[in-house]
Amino acid sequence: MLVLKHLPISSFNENVAYIHKDCVAYNTEEIKALSKIEVHGGAKNIYAFLQVTDSEKLVKPNELALNDEAFQQINLPEGANVSLTAASNPPSLNSIKRKVMGNIISSSEYGSIINDIIAHRYSNMDIASFLVASGSFMSAPEVLSLTEAMIGDKLIKWDNENIVVDHHSFGGVPGNKTDLIITPIVAAYGLPIPKTASRSLTSCAGVADTMSVLCNVDIDENSFKNNVRENRGAIASYTQLDISPACRIISSVERQIGITSLEHIASSILSIKIAAGVTHLLLDIPVGVNARLRTTGEAMRIRKLMEYIGDMLGIHVDVVITDGSEPIGNGIGAVLEARDVMKVLRNKDDAPEDLREKSLFLAGRILEFDPKLRGGHGYQVAKEILMSGRALEAMNKIIHSQGKSSQPQLGHLTRDIVAENSGVIEKIDTSRINKIGVWAGAGKYQGAGLDLVKKVGDFVEKGEVIYRIHSVNSTDFAFANSVIDGHSGYEIVNKNAY
Amino acid sequence: MLVLKHLPISSFNENVAYIHKDCVAYNTEEIKALSKIEVHGGAKNIYAFLQVTDSEKLVKPNELALNDEAFQQINLPEGANVSLTAASNPPSLNSIKRKVMGNIISSSEYGSIINDIIAHRYSNMDIASFLVASGSFMSAPEVLSLTEAMIGDKLIKWDNENIVVDHHSFGGVPGNKTDLIITPIVAAYGLPIPKTASRSLTSCAGVADTMSVLCNVDIDENSFKNNVRENRGAIASYTQLDISPACRIISSVERQIGITSLEHIASSILSIKIAAGVTHLLLDIPVGVNARLRTTGEAMRIRKLMEYIGDMLGIHVDVVITDGSEPIGNGIGAVLEARDVMKVLRNKDDAPEDLREKSLFLAGRILEFDPKLRGGHGYQVAKEILMSGRALEAMNKIIHSQGKSSQPQLGHLTRDIVAENSGVIEKIDTSRINKIGVWAGAGKYQGAGLDLVKKVGDFVEKGEVIYRIHSVNSTDFAFANSVIDGHSGYEIVNKNAY
Repeated sequence: MLVLKHLPISSFNENVAYIHKDCVAYNTEEIKALSKIEVHGGAKNIYAFLQVTDSEKLVKPNELALNDEAFQQINLPEGANVSLTAASNPPSLNSIKRKVMGNIISSSEYGSIINDIIAHRYSNMDIASFLVASGSFMSAPEVLSLTEAMIGDKLIKWDNENIVVDHHSFGGVPGNKTDLIITPIVAAYGLPIPKTASRSLTSCAGVADTMSVLCNVDIDENSFKNNVRENRGAIASYTQLDISPACRIISSVERQIGITSLEHIASSILSIKIAAGVTHLLLDIPVGVNARLRTTGEAMRIRKLMEYIGDMLGIHVDVVITDGSEPIGNGIGAVLEARDVMKVLRNKDDAPEDLREKSLFLAGRILEFDPKLRGGHGYQVAKEILMSGRALEAMNKIIHSQGKSSQPQLGHLTRDIVAENSGVIEKIDTSRINKIGVWAGAGKYQGAGLDLVKKVGDFVEKGEVIYRIHSVNSTDFAFANSVIDGHSGYEIVNKNAY
Repeated sequence: MLVLKHLPISSFNENVAYIHKDCVAYNTEEIKALSKIEVHGGAKNIYAFLQVTDSEKLVKPNELALNDEAFQQINLPEGANVSLTAASNPPSLNSIKRKVMGNIISSSEYGSIINDIIAHRYSNMDIASFLVASGSFMSAPEVLSLTEAMIGDKLIKWDNENIVVDHHSFGGVPGNKTDLIITPIVAAYGLPIPKTASRSLTSCAGVADTMSVLCNVDIDENSFKNNVRENRGAIASYTQLDISPACRIISSVERQIGITSLEHIASSILSIKIAAGVTHLLLDIPVGVNARLRTTGEAMRIRKLMEYIGDMLGIHVDVVITDGSEPIGNGIGAVLEARDVMKVLRNKDDAPEDLREKSLFLAGRILEFDPKLRGGHGYQVAKEILMSGRALEAMNKIIHSQGKSSQPQLGHLTRDIVAENSGVIEKIDTSRINKIGVWAGAGKYQGAGLDLVKKVGDFVEKGEVIYRIHSVNSTDFAFANSVIDGHSGYEIVNKNAY
């Protein structure tokens, strides 16, 4: 028997157990590698990964210490009696080996993998192995199996609603915050839109990050349902709704290894939307040389895949392929993107035109899910809702219901990036722009990001500001500064030179 | 500036830095995922992965704590001033993404990956990603690139020796400890054999584990060279010789994720042997239904691969394909395997015949690397050396020079597994036997393992002991017991029943 202790260290989703090297219950002398153990004593056994210390200040030989994640799961007070046994690798790891070797694995194998991930039987290394093994090749039925497994047990039900809509972008385009404009337009029209959003994975801001600049997004299922009932719309982080738990764990590892595959993104999107009770989903797939999808051929493959899975799992998926060649709007990073969104909703003169037009186009497509609306009229209806101020009104209601945020400030460490020659901006490398934003701290800090003063087609004089970097802390600022020089991501062509 | 602290936690090769959530140098409030940082202040900057605590007992807001691995690398006393900056992902992670997508990556890309791994710029998750991405497919030139990169900077030189030999088995056959018999035979003959050995990866005992039952294997390069000069042979753990540092880190992750590919094993073996200065390598590839290589076709592919890499990198590789269908010897696990080895060397009546014969066959092949020995005479010469006691004498010299061990005991928790019916043992499932041994604690504890009383071809009565399980601690013992029933790994056929 060991005495339970809490070592308040947060290890990002991984359960860690710490024992003293002279632990009375486990001979650590010859442990040569990370051991998986099962800890008994709570209502259910939990799995953890063993680390060893020689300091009695941290753990005594008769104690077992758990990190934040594991301590929360075991749900026992410090001082409780616990015991430990060796845990063998879950059998589903063999399916991963088979996947590494190029096999197609079955629906029940995907089910076991996802179950073991949810039960914390996988280390983050095991999850990374699964993601990489399945990332290089998955057949369409495999993506279906994975999606089905990821949906999980909990489905949000919307009584008395025949159509429940949502929109999702496949991502890869900096500044693409159409969701925050589409949602109030659709809500103002009257279709229920319970938007589930996520935090940034590898980008400068996820939809949840940007919305959290304006209001609380960590609302529970009850508030989510009440808000949609009252306002016809809500924008919440899916993790707090406790749906598709596998997505949360998997995306935490994806964020850390920086590797995501199109198939995994497809599975994540659909499993979350299905668990959220969405019946009609509009999916935006941006295509551009530096976007996530580079050719319309690739986009078409993903479209077919999403349609197939949607049909098999009973969700109507409407796919639009859009231009992902340059950033949308001016702001990149949560605070700056929220600024752009509010400018559009307030019909300001300096609202970014591209963000407004893309949002209206997509909102129009969603409105046409309504059988009562005549085909081709969606865009016009969406535009009327926006111009009349009804979209702003709907957004304010949503913000009010979810609880206004403390309004984070824009990072005060700034640097202006200027044009190195005069000419016309011919191209903006979206992946470079995203990287510079991430280096400056965007994705981690809401106030960090880039403010794009000039866009493609603009004429600039040598020395004129093309964009401004904002950082929240000096570490990130120094890092972004040290790597940016000479590679701004902008291509300026002097037409007179021809 | 932060004050350095040592948090004595061992995290198995990964550098971890702990900061307080109110750290004065880093705003942790919005950190959403593991951040990689660079720590400055020591002779060279080190990389670490950030974990956050809210306990001032562990780390104060003005402190930066490092775990064992990182504290050792930074090589500064507690209380020293350090600073931290964000570290971006090393560019070589992009090569891994390209590998996931099915590309062949270049020699310089493998070089960068291995450099970054050695510099601790990869998290264990990143290393797992690399192993899985490259594990599913590598072209022969890629394996060559990886091997070359893994050799590293340090090469052991053997002056005045034209031929420096070694033997390695591709593994997968429980109990296969021919190395400890081959080495003294070859040394007694007079060819220099500086054997580099490793700890078990997924098996019940590596050669280094078994040798460490008899003597110290953690010797440094000087002792290694002196011993080979004096005794013509030595058996040392390659990790203490500080050669091929990438192998050590990679195999630690392979051990944890339980995934190894044939290509990685080939690279590891050759990079270590080349770094150890071996000129002539005998490679044993066992083939069996449950061995690592299942068909002679697969074995032939690996043979060609090893020959190709050997030729390109200037090491003579002689491959023999052997029978891997059943365990070799009676003991599985370090203490039991050392017992078998000493029985053979002492020419005991109950020495396992199969272990002796396989060792003589392989030793004979190695002796024939000597141009002075007439072709086909190796086996006979090896047998004479063994029977005359000269091999035992050579082994005792090696043990004496390296320093006799404290002789670990056989695990005292035992269970006899008995025959469920009478008949002849037709098959032994080597992978099942290996698993049961690992569950019983073998690979972690020298004293754990299986003692195979009966082998293929033996007649047994119902209830007769076929093997005995030995465990060192009750956790492992309970676990092995809970999973073994009804699946002993032995197939006993009652011939009378036909």
